[in-house]
Amino acid sequence: MKNYADRLINAIEKKGNPCIVGLDPRIDQMPDFVQYKHRNQSTSDKISGAISDFHRIIINTIADIVPGVKPQVAFYEQYGLPGMKAFENTLAFAKEKGLITIVDAKRNDIGSTAQAYSNTFLGKTIIFSKKVPIYDVDCITVSPFLGEDSLMPFVKDCSEYGKGIFILVKTSNPGSVDVQDLKITETGEKVYINLAKLVKKLGKGLVGKKGYSSIGAVVGATYPNEAELLRELMANNIFLVPGYGAQGATGKDIVNCFNPDKLGAVVNASRSITYNYGPKTISEADFVKTIEKNIKDMITDVNGALDKK
Amino acid sequence: MKNYADRLINAIEKKGNPCIVGLDPRIDQMPDFVQYKHRNQSTSDKISGAISDFHRIIINTIADIVPGVKPQVAFYEQYGLPGMKAFENTLAFAKEKGLITIVDAKRNDIGSTAQAYSNTFLGKTIIFSKKVPIYDVDCITVSPFLGEDSLMPFVKDCSEYGKGIFILVKTSNPGSVDVQDLKITETGEKVYINLAKLVKKLGKGLVGKKGYSSIGAVVGATYPNEAELLRELMANNIFLVPGYGAQGATGKDIVNCFNPDKLGAVVNASRSITYNYGPKTISEADFVKTIEKNIKDMITDVNGALDKK
Repeated sequence: MKNYADRLINAIEKKGNPCIVGLDPRIDQMPDFVQYKHRNQSTSDKISGAISDFHRIIINTIADIVPGVKPQVAFYEQYGLPGMKAFENTLAFAKEKGLITIVDAKRNDIGSTAQAYSNTFLGKTIIFSKKVPIYDVDCITVSPFLGEDSLMPFVKDCSEYGKGIFILVKTSNPGSVDVQDLKITETGEKVYINLAKLVKKLGKGLVGKKGYSSIGAVVGATYPNEAELLRELMANNIFLVPGYGAQGATGKDIVNCFNPDKLGAVVNASRSITYNYGPKTISEADFVKTIEKNIKDMITDVNGALDKK
Repeated sequence: MKNYADRLINAIEKKGNPCIVGLDPRIDQMPDFVQYKHRNQSTSDKISGAISDFHRIIINTIADIVPGVKPQVAFYEQYGLPGMKAFENTLAFAKEKGLITIVDAKRNDIGSTAQAYSNTFLGKTIIFSKKVPIYDVDCITVSPFLGEDSLMPFVKDCSEYGKGIFILVKTSNPGSVDVQDLKITETGEKVYINLAKLVKKLGKGLVGKKGYSSIGAVVGATYPNEAELLRELMANNIFLVPGYGAQGATGKDIVNCFNPDKLGAVVNASRSITYNYGPKTISEADFVKTIEKNIKDMITDVNGALDKK
């Protein structure tokens, strides 16, 4: 299916929930059995082996349950080249299992540099006169701080390659108020309202058959009042909602991110799904059961809240 | 020397100019001789070989002339893992030659994810219970869009590891007006003024013996009027000035980024130095001569403008 928003909405409808699992490699928090398997290898192979195994197990566990995964590239990058090798492996597992891949990268830059980032994740790079896909994921998060022109290479590639972006509009952290909540003299509204209008405008040409655009917005679950307002302003844009779980938000906090059709958002949880498993001596079988329980509990909470909406 | 700002100012004084060379791998724009050497290797080795060689030659040519280099990580990332291998190599060459390494990454995220980016470039990652440096560069560019709390892990690592950051304040592209130039009701001033005050505040604890802070600001050469105002507001913060050369700014445009002591800024040029060499059939010897001429022309222009200041 060519349109990213259609693919994502289809996956949500098929799995019956809008929950996605954030993949944040933190080797020292992984169970012992993950590290044990690679104990005789080089440090580099131990790193990529542990990260890849951990995420292969998680992906196998959740692939039939949720529509997608959100690898956070920062946590892979912090392990250098072996980390990026594991990033490639993680994406390969997720794609093989038919999961939607949303890379949390919060990238951006200007002109040809923004294009380079778009090549890396969404489009293709010209290498020795041939156009070659690099990570070829479904979607990435991007920052709007550098303005509309910095977003255009990504929007163009979303159209050309059937990809999506989530533009940061109102993030889940306390410091999001510092820039995003500044009130603008010209409009009397806050910066995030301006950004919502920009998301709406950029997304117009990329609305799929399901009525949603491939250009979406990041809106934190920790700001339900702002989410209500933003939901009205961006009726056809999908929200990526961080902040559920470890950051404190629950099912009732995320309902404002959804439309009356109970669509229009994906809710991410990372640590509360993948690192919430008890002692590191846990067996692989028990780890799998715990991950499955964690994600099913989240789905019950989120779908329960949506049912009451 | 522990303080980054002191190291940078020392290097500027030693080399007698504030010019740095941007390293943007674009394989298909590199001279034929770079690619020819690797013609019988695997695609992966051809990519990392060509990018590494190109930058080794440039670094050898400019190392005694300029204080530092600015690798743009987006252009390395767009070649996947072989690109990141070349990124490692480029940094190794630059460090070996004693150049200050400023990575243009425009990274940021919240909480532990911002910490992961800081680990990647400035600090250390805990790997199998040991703290290990990853790219270990002198400085990176970061985005302030997520607010003050998102910047704190970087500021802490600047202090702990003697590193620096340049926070985006007023970027060189036309679209920089979209967010950065919005006028705020509370203060009657623009967003970039708020950010300048934040840079000043965050930089207070990191002022070195030379009087400058390791927390600096990105201020585009294409906005000289804004630069004048920002220079006054951030008297002790070093500016990283993009926009010179290919983006149209010249020596006279950058003088407002400097203090009366003719210090306080580094001016970057990328394409106008490294890809401005004529036909791709150029010999290695002529390429070296051309790069040397390009950087010396830039220094003459920039220092000439500073002399008239």
